[in-house]
Amino acid sequence: MEEVPKSVGAYRHIILAKMKDDVEPEEFEQIMKAFANLPTLIPQIKSLHWGRDESVKNKTQGFTHIVEVTFDSHEDIAIYYDHPAHIKFAWELFPVVEDYLVINYKPTTSVEIPQKNNNNNSSS
Amino acid sequence: MEEVPKSVGAYRHIILAKMKDDVEPEEFEQIMKAFANLPTLIPQIKSLHWGRDESVKNKTQGFTHIVEVTFDSHEDIAIYYDHPAHIKFAWELFPVVEDYLVINYKPTTSVEIPQKNNNNNSSS
Repeated sequence: MEEVPKSVGAYRHIILAKMKDDVEPEEFEQIMKAFANLPTLIPQIKSLHWGRDESVKNKTQGFTHIVEVTFDSHEDIAIYYDHPAHIKFAWELFPVVEDYLVINYKPTTSVEIPQKNNNNNSSS
Repeated sequence: MEEVPKSVGAYRHIILAKMKDDVEPEEFEQIMKAFANLPTLIPQIKSLHWGRDESVKNKTQGFTHIVEVTFDSHEDIAIYYDHPAHIKFAWELFPVVEDYLVINYKPTTSVEIPQKNNNNNSSS
Protein backbone atom coordinates (compact mmCIF):
# COMPACT_ATOMS: atom_id res chain seq x y z
CA MET A 1 0.00 0.00 0.00
CA GLU A 2 1.30 3.39 -0.97
CA GLU A 3 2.41 5.59 1.87
CA VAL A 4 0.60 8.92 1.97
CA PRO A 5 2.18 11.82 3.87
CA LYS A 6 -0.07 12.89 6.74
CA SER A 7 -0.96 16.48 7.48
CA VAL A 8 -1.15 17.00 11.24
CA GLY A 9 -1.86 20.13 13.24
CA ALA A 10 -4.73 22.59 13.01
CA TYR A 11 -3.00 25.21 10.83
CA ARG A 12 -1.56 24.90 7.35
CA HIS A 13 1.02 27.10 5.66
CA ILE A 14 0.87 26.71 1.88
CA ILE A 15 3.60 27.98 -0.42
CA LEU A 16 3.16 28.02 -4.20
CA ALA A 17 6.37 28.65 -6.11
CA LYS A 18 7.38 29.17 -9.70
CA MET A 19 10.92 27.91 -10.06
CA LYS A 20 13.22 29.70 -12.49
CA ASP A 21 13.61 27.85 -15.78
CA ASP A 22 17.39 27.57 -15.50
CA VAL A 23 17.50 25.82 -12.11
CA GLU A 24 19.56 22.64 -12.40
CA PRO A 25 18.07 19.42 -10.97
CA GLU A 26 21.02 19.10 -8.58
CA GLU A 27 20.47 22.62 -7.27
CA PHE A 28 16.76 21.97 -6.86
CA GLU A 29 17.48 18.73 -4.99
CA GLN A 30 19.80 20.53 -2.57
CA ILE A 31 17.10 23.09 -1.84
CA MET A 32 14.44 20.44 -1.25
CA LYS A 33 16.82 18.56 1.06
CA ALA A 34 17.28 21.74 3.08
CA PHE A 35 13.50 22.21 3.15
CA ALA A 36 12.86 18.59 4.16
CA ASN A 37 15.36 19.06 6.99
CA LEU A 38 13.54 22.05 8.52
CA PRO A 39 11.29 19.94 10.80
CA THR A 40 14.42 18.62 12.55
CA LEU A 41 15.49 22.22 13.28
CA ILE A 42 12.15 23.89 14.02
CA PRO A 43 10.04 21.90 16.50
CA GLN A 44 6.90 23.93 15.75
CA ILE A 45 6.69 22.19 12.34
CA LYS A 46 4.37 19.19 12.68
CA SER A 47 4.60 17.93 9.09
CA LEU A 48 6.07 19.06 5.79
CA HIS A 49 5.54 17.74 2.30
CA TRP A 50 5.68 19.05 -1.21
CA GLY A 51 4.87 18.19 -4.79
CA ARG A 52 5.12 19.28 -8.39
CA ASP A 53 2.00 20.43 -10.20
CA GLU A 54 0.52 17.67 -12.37
CA SER A 55 -2.62 19.41 -13.55
CA VAL A 56 -3.52 19.47 -17.21
CA LYS A 57 -5.96 22.39 -17.35
CA ASN A 58 -3.35 25.17 -17.34
CA LYS A 59 -4.96 27.07 -14.47
CA THR A 60 -1.77 27.21 -12.39
CA GLN A 61 -0.97 30.87 -13.18
CA GLY A 62 2.60 29.71 -13.73
CA PHE A 63 3.18 28.10 -10.35
CA THR A 64 5.06 24.80 -10.63
CA HIS A 65 5.52 23.57 -7.06
CA ILE A 66 3.59 23.49 -3.79
CA VAL A 67 4.78 22.96 -0.22
CA GLU A 68 2.53 22.37 2.78
CA VAL A 69 3.90 22.96 6.28
CA THR A 70 1.60 22.30 9.24
CA PHE A 71 1.49 23.70 12.76
CA ASP A 72 -0.56 23.41 15.92
CA SER A 73 -1.39 27.10 16.10
CA HIS A 74 -1.27 30.44 14.32
CA GLU A 75 1.33 31.55 16.87
CA ASP A 76 3.62 28.66 15.90
CA ILE A 77 3.65 29.91 12.30
CA ALA A 78 4.95 33.26 13.59
CA ILE A 79 7.72 31.45 15.50
CA TYR A 80 8.60 29.55 12.30
CA TYR A 81 8.77 32.78 10.30
CA ASP A 82 11.35 34.26 12.65
CA HIS A 83 13.34 31.10 13.31
CA PRO A 84 16.99 31.42 12.15
CA ALA A 85 16.80 28.07 10.32
CA HIS A 86 13.80 29.31 8.31
CA ILE A 87 15.44 32.64 7.52
CA LYS A 88 18.62 30.84 6.37
CA PHE A 89 16.54 28.52 4.17
CA ALA A 90 14.57 31.41 2.69
CA TRP A 91 17.83 33.10 1.64
CA GLU A 92 18.91 29.89 -0.13
CA LEU A 93 15.53 29.53 -1.81
CA PHE A 94 15.10 33.09 -2.99
CA PRO A 95 17.59 33.06 -5.92
CA VAL A 96 15.92 30.09 -7.65
CA VAL A 97 12.31 31.26 -7.29
CA GLU A 98 10.78 33.51 -9.90
CA ASP A 99 7.49 34.03 -8.09
CA TYR A 100 5.70 32.72 -5.01
CA LEU A 101 2.64 33.13 -2.87
CA VAL A 102 1.69 32.10 0.65
CA ILE A 103 -1.67 31.15 2.17
CA ASN A 104 -2.08 30.32 5.85
CA TYR A 105 -5.34 28.69 6.85
CA LYS A 106 -7.13 26.61 9.39
CA PRO A 107 -8.84 23.82 7.43
CA THR A 108 -12.48 23.23 8.17
CA THR A 109 -15.22 21.08 6.76
CA SER A 110 -17.83 23.39 8.24
CA VAL A 111 -19.85 25.74 6.07
CA GLU A 112 -20.01 28.35 8.82
CA ILE A 113 -18.42 31.58 7.62
CA PRO A 114 -15.44 32.63 9.74
CA GLN A 115 -15.30 36.29 10.76
CA LYS A 116 -12.45 38.43 9.54
CA ASN A 117 -9.93 38.47 12.38
CA ASN A 118 -7.16 40.55 10.89
CA ASN A 119 -6.32 42.96 8.11
CA ASN A 120 -4.59 41.02 5.34
CA ASN A 121 -3.21 44.18 3.83
CA SER A 122 -1.18 45.02 6.91
CA SER A 123 2.32 43.71 7.42
CA SER A 124 3.07 42.58 10.95
CA MET B 1 -9.28 18.31 21.76
CA GLU B 2 -9.85 20.22 18.57
CA GLU B 3 -10.93 18.17 15.59
CA VAL B 4 -8.62 18.51 12.60
CA PRO B 5 -9.93 17.61 9.15
CA LYS B 6 -7.95 14.74 7.70
CA SER B 7 -6.56 14.68 4.18
CA VAL B 8 -6.77 11.18 2.76
CA GLY B 9 -5.83 9.84 -0.66
CA ALA B 10 -2.57 10.11 -2.57
CA TYR B 11 -3.52 13.09 -4.76
CA ARG B 12 -4.52 16.60 -3.78
CA HIS B 13 -6.44 19.16 -5.81
CA ILE B 14 -5.85 22.68 -4.46
CA ILE B 15 -7.99 25.64 -5.47
CA LEU B 16 -7.07 29.18 -4.51
CA ALA B 17 -9.83 31.71 -5.06
CA LYS B 18 -10.26 35.43 -4.80
CA MET B 19 -13.88 36.11 -3.98
CA LYS B 20 -15.50 39.22 -5.39
CA ASP B 21 -15.78 42.02 -2.84
CA ASP B 22 -19.54 42.32 -3.16
CA VAL B 23 -20.39 38.69 -2.33
CA GLU B 24 -22.92 38.61 0.50
CA PRO B 25 -22.20 36.26 3.43
CA GLU B 26 -25.46 34.38 2.74
CA GLU B 27 -24.47 33.82 -0.89
CA PHE B 28 -21.00 32.66 0.14
CA GLU B 29 -22.51 30.28 2.68
CA GLN B 30 -24.80 28.75 0.02
CA ILE B 31 -21.81 28.18 -2.24
CA MET B 32 -19.74 26.55 0.50
CA LYS B 33 -22.70 24.33 1.41
CA ALA B 34 -22.87 23.18 -2.21
CA PHE B 35 -19.11 22.58 -2.17
CA ALA B 36 -19.23 20.68 1.12
CA ASN B 37 -21.98 18.51 -0.35
CA LEU B 38 -19.90 17.40 -3.37
CA PRO B 39 -18.36 14.35 -1.62
CA THR B 40 -21.86 12.91 -1.20
CA LEU B 41 -22.41 13.20 -4.97
CA ILE B 42 -18.96 12.32 -6.32
CA PRO B 43 -17.56 9.13 -4.76
CA GLN B 44 -14.05 9.78 -6.08
CA ILE B 45 -13.68 12.62 -3.54
CA LYS B 46 -11.98 11.22 -0.43
CA SER B 47 -11.94 14.40 1.64
CA LEU B 48 -12.74 18.07 1.19
CA HIS B 49 -11.99 21.03 3.40
CA TRP B 50 -11.44 24.72 3.02
CA GLY B 51 -10.33 27.83 4.83
CA ARG B 52 -9.89 31.56 4.65
CA ASP B 53 -6.42 33.03 4.42
CA GLU B 54 -5.15 34.23 7.81
CA SER B 55 -1.62 35.21 6.86
CA VAL B 56 -0.25 38.57 7.86
CA LYS B 57 2.65 38.97 5.41
CA ASN B 58 0.57 40.05 2.40
CA LYS B 59 2.08 37.45 0.05
CA THR B 60 -1.28 36.02 -1.01
CA GLN B 61 -1.35 37.75 -4.44
CA GLY B 62 -4.96 38.62 -3.67
CA PHE B 63 -6.26 35.10 -3.05
CA THR B 64 -8.59 34.96 -0.08
CA HIS B 65 -9.74 31.32 0.15
CA ILE B 66 -8.30 27.84 -0.33
CA VAL B 67 -10.02 24.50 -0.88
CA GLU B 68 -8.32 21.11 -0.76
CA VAL B 69 -10.03 18.12 -2.39
CA THR B 70 -8.30 14.75 -2.20
CA PHE B 71 -8.41 11.67 -4.40
CA ASP B 72 -6.88 8.22 -4.64
CA SER B 73 -5.47 8.76 -8.12
CA HIS B 74 -4.77 11.25 -10.88
CA GLU B 75 -7.47 9.49 -12.93
CA ASP B 76 -10.06 10.15 -10.24
CA ILE B 77 -9.40 13.88 -10.54
CA ALA B 78 -10.28 13.64 -14.24
CA ILE B 79 -13.54 11.85 -13.34
CA TYR B 80 -14.29 14.64 -10.84
CA TYR B 81 -13.64 17.35 -13.45
CA ASP B 82 -16.21 15.86 -15.81
CA HIS B 83 -18.78 14.84 -13.20
CA PRO B 84 -22.13 16.63 -13.71
CA ALA B 85 -22.29 17.60 -10.01
CA HIS B 86 -18.88 19.29 -10.29
CA ILE B 87 -19.82 21.10 -13.49
CA LYS B 88 -23.07 22.33 -11.92
CA PHE B 89 -21.15 23.55 -8.87
CA ALA B 90 -18.54 25.30 -11.02
CA TRP B 91 -21.29 27.22 -12.79
CA GLU B 92 -22.66 28.38 -9.41
CA LEU B 93 -19.19 29.34 -8.19
CA PHE B 94 -18.01 31.19 -11.27
CA PRO B 95 -20.06 34.43 -10.85
CA VAL B 96 -18.72 35.13 -7.34
CA VAL B 97 -15.05 34.45 -8.06
CA GLU B 98 -12.81 37.22 -9.36
CA ASP B 99 -9.74 35.01 -9.87
CA TYR B 100 -8.62 31.47 -9.14
CA LEU B 101 -5.85 28.98 -9.68
CA VAL B 102 -5.57 25.22 -9.43
CA ILE B 103 -2.66 22.98 -8.46
CA ASN B 104 -2.88 19.18 -8.53
CA TYR B 105 -0.11 17.30 -6.78
CA LYS B 106 0.95 14.09 -5.19
CA PRO B 107 2.41 15.03 -1.81
CA THR B 108 5.76 13.57 -0.93
CA THR B 109 8.25 13.96 1.86
CA SER B 110 11.01 12.62 -0.37
CA VAL B 111 13.66 14.90 -1.82
CA GLU B 112 13.87 12.82 -4.99
CA ILE B 113 13.06 15.00 -7.96
CA PRO B 114 10.04 13.75 -9.94
CA GLN B 115 10.46 13.68 -13.71
CA LYS B 116 8.30 15.90 -15.84
CA ASN B 117 5.48 13.65 -17.03
CA ASN B 118 3.38 16.05 -19.01
CA ASN B 119 3.39 19.47 -20.61
CA ASN B 120 1.60 21.88 -18.30
CA ASN B 121 1.08 24.33 -21.16
CA SER B 122 -1.13 21.92 -23.06
CA SER B 123 -4.84 21.61 -22.41
CA SER B 124 -6.06 18.05 -22.40
